[in-house]
Amino acid sequence: MAGPSPTGGLSPSRIETLCDGVFAIAMTLLVLEIKVPEPHAGPGLVHRLAELVPKMASFGVSFVILGTLWVGHHYQFHYIRRSDRPLLWINIGFLLFVSFLPFATGVVGNFPGERAAVLLYGATLLAAGLFLLAQWTWATAGRRLVASDLDPAVVAAVRARVLAGTGFYAVAMAVTLLSTRAGLLLFALMPLLYLVPSRIDRHVRTPSGS
Amino acid sequence: MAGPSPTGGLSPSRIETLCDGVFAIAMTLLVLEIKVPEPHAGPGLVHRLAELVPKMASFGVSFVILGTLWVGHHYQFHYIRRSDRPLLWINIGFLLFVSFLPFATGVVGNFPGERAAVLLYGATLLAAGLFLLAQWTWATAGRRLVASDLDPAVVAAVRARVLAGTGFYAVAMAVTLLSTRAGLLLFALMPLLYLVPSRIDRHVRTPSGS
Amino acid sequence: MAGPSPTGGLSPSRIETLCDGVFAIAMTLLVLEIKVPEPHAGPGLVHRLAELVPKMASFGVSFVILGTLWVGHHYQFHYIRRSDRPLLWINIGFLLFVSFLPFATGVVGNFPGERAAVLLYGATLLAAGLFLLAQWTWATAGRRLVASDLDPAVVAAVRARVLAGTGFYAVAMAVTLLSTRAGLLLFALMPLLYLVPSRIDRHVRTPSGS
Amino acid sequence: MAGPSPTGGLSPSRIETLCDGVFAIAMTLLVLEIKVPEPHAGPGLVHRLAELVPKMASFGVSFVILGTLWVGHHYQFHYIRRSDRPLLWINIGFLLFVSFLPFATGVVGNFPGERAAVLLYGATLLAAGLFLLAQWTWATAGRRLVASDLDPAVVAAVRARVLAGTGFYAVAMAVTLLSTRAGLLLFALMPLLYLVPSRIDRHVRTPSGS
Repeated sequence: MAGPSPTGGLSPSRIETLCDGVFAIAMTLLVLEIKVPEPHAGPGLVHRLAELVPKMASFGVSFVILGTLWVGHHYQFHYIRRSDRPLLWINIGFLLFVSFLPFATGVVGNFPGERAAVLLYGATLLAAGLFLLAQWTWATAGRRLVASDLDPAVVAAVRARVLAGTGFYAVAMAVTLLSTRAGLLLFALMPLLYLVPSRIDRHVRTPSGS
Repeated sequence: MAGPSPTGGLSPSRIETLCDGVFAIAMTLLVLEIKVPEPHAGPGLVHRLAELVPKMASFGVSFVILGTLWVGHHYQFHYIRRSDRPLLWINIGFLLFVSFLPFATGVVGNFPGERAAVLLYGATLLAAGLFLLAQWTWATAGRRLVASDLDPAVVAAVRARVLAGTGFYAVAMAVTLLSTRAGLLLFALMPLLYLVPSRIDRHVRTPSGS
Repeated sequence: MAGPSPTGGLSPSRIETLCDGVFAIAMTLLVLEIKVPEPHAGPGLVHRLAELVPKMASFGVSFVILGTLWVGHHYQFHYIRRSDRPLLWINIGFLLFVSFLPFATGVVGNFPGERAAVLLYGATLLAAGLFLLAQWTWATAGRRLVASDLDPAVVAAVRARVLAGTGFYAVAMAVTLLSTRAGLLLFALMPLLYLVPSRIDRHVRTPSGS
Repeated sequence: MAGPSPTGGLSPSRIETLCDGVFAIAMTLLVLEIKVPEPHAGPGLVHRLAELVPKMASFGVSFVILGTLWVGHHYQFHYIRRSDRPLLWINIGFLLFVSFLPFATGVVGNFPGERAAVLLYGATLLAAGLFLLAQWTWATAGRRLVASDLDPAVVAAVRARVLAGTGFYAVAMAVTLLSTRAGLLLFALMPLLYLVPSRIDRHVRTPSGS
């Protein structure tokens, strides 16, 4: 892991390790917002678990959205071969918003009907998405940190994917200004967008892209 | 870690890193449910530690059960050579339930005699087990993500192991419907099932399986 | 990381990843036991930070003791080349007690003068040490998981080191039965034992041991 | 990961894994100090989020400062090829203060105007910086743990960088003694120092340094 990359420069592998660590922790911290009911107090357990369903739903949605960001990061690093100081800092900025998401999720879980809560949540995701976009732009401009013969179709496909995600967050925030409920629904549906196969997958499967 | 796998496609190593991270955190978070007694309050320390024994037991059992899931995941990735988008999402689904287990453990620790608590715990484990089963099925169908000459006996042995685990969880849930106490006992005994050597180990030890 | 080790069998690298994760989390969780003082309440900040000094001391000592266990594990895996099911389970048992240490540290921090607290702390360390000893015994018996030509002096030197550590814990527990204060002092001094160079280091530095 | 490094001795990769884990957790724990507002209580959500802005700012600054320490560690390990017992312990000392930073951040967040809070924060950073300096000194003296032909200009450039950081912390602490507000401002501006390119980057980009 510590070795220099074949083409000189810093190896990108430690960015991946830090990033996977922050994702693993942010994902697992989400569940800490769901407080375990205390015994000997008030209504029955089933009733009290039912009260926690909105929090469980926001846990599930945020977990899967973190998953989409992680998958997006994963795909970019499939092609990124070298690291430099700006790439380190783009990643630290990206992780800043990833690690902020459990807080934003907790706010939405406590105030699901409040516009400010949904906007805070959307803004956190939008910021994370913009850092992913900045990373791909920085890494691929002049093939700075990717293979010099990387297929332009791959560059375009990954960019289209990131743009679709950040565009979706921006639209969902705009919708939230009109209707908090509709905006919340869009964020909840968002992960489905990522489940459909993408043009990127075709490139990854063929060795030419590597 | 970032490199393409020899046969093209995404390398599976980052899934392992994320997965190991989530397991490490979920295992360690379990202990946070055991609250450190505060000083200057009520009975002696020994008495108060004794009161925490049920929580310590549920910590120990959940830790070992997480261990069995991690070992199961570990064995599958011994054979998985490539990654694709569905594999990423199967793993995110798997980790969703792994990271939910500390919550379910806390509920059982606070309500050990409640049927709903034990069922929630069992359902969390069953869901995690079904994702492991889905992963092996997806990876091995048509040798999609494993070596093309992988011994069919290995495929069958790993599948039998996962089926035994998920079957056990389903049976323990059914028993819980009859008797909460008996169901709880089954979950506590479950790890012992995994301590016995398996047919898989024989394959792993001989180079033919690799 | 997922590849088979050169000699067949499971690669030990994922055990290291899980282990490093649990250590990283257990080390960092220790600090959560030191509660940040709330503003607008009672005496000045300096006074209130001073009250936290015993907790900070127990944080520091436990952090360094976790460091000694991690270093011990690190040295053993320098020689362990293969993995098998018992090794996986020995590690899960080891990590069970590692992840329990923040709780035991919190108990000692709240009840530094109580014999039961110090004994709980010592028993946690002793159990972790015994798992390290079991791991080395299992891995080296018949050169099961290490290189077949591993120098017997290395086997003996690592064993001596682990025995010294676990022996120290046992002695400190016995001393605690006579005097809680003296036992506590021994645990606090324990890390110094590990700072002295060891015969192992000499072997590690020479290529013959690798 | 477990293999011996080409030149004998312990491989440094596990130090990196532990270190990345502690950084990932410390970064993510920072956000736990920002408590999610509870519903049904007092003023509107926007007002209550606005009250949290100082805490969010201290979260952001500490996150980025942890980023600078991680980047500094990353650059050193780009050159460190071997590990020994003192290096292990220097890293454990370094991580002790890294994992203490969320506590110090919480204290500054609760008492931003208190001199003792800012000094505690600065002392934590200074200690972490001194360990980074000790690591580089230990690793490069007589080319102990780096390549024997490592360019002296690289050794000097990395040292200058670490000295600049620790010097800045020391100056900011001295300023805090004169004016808490000015000291706090300096710590908040500190990350900007690291955003400017450095002489090290020039070396990393050319293969001669590797």
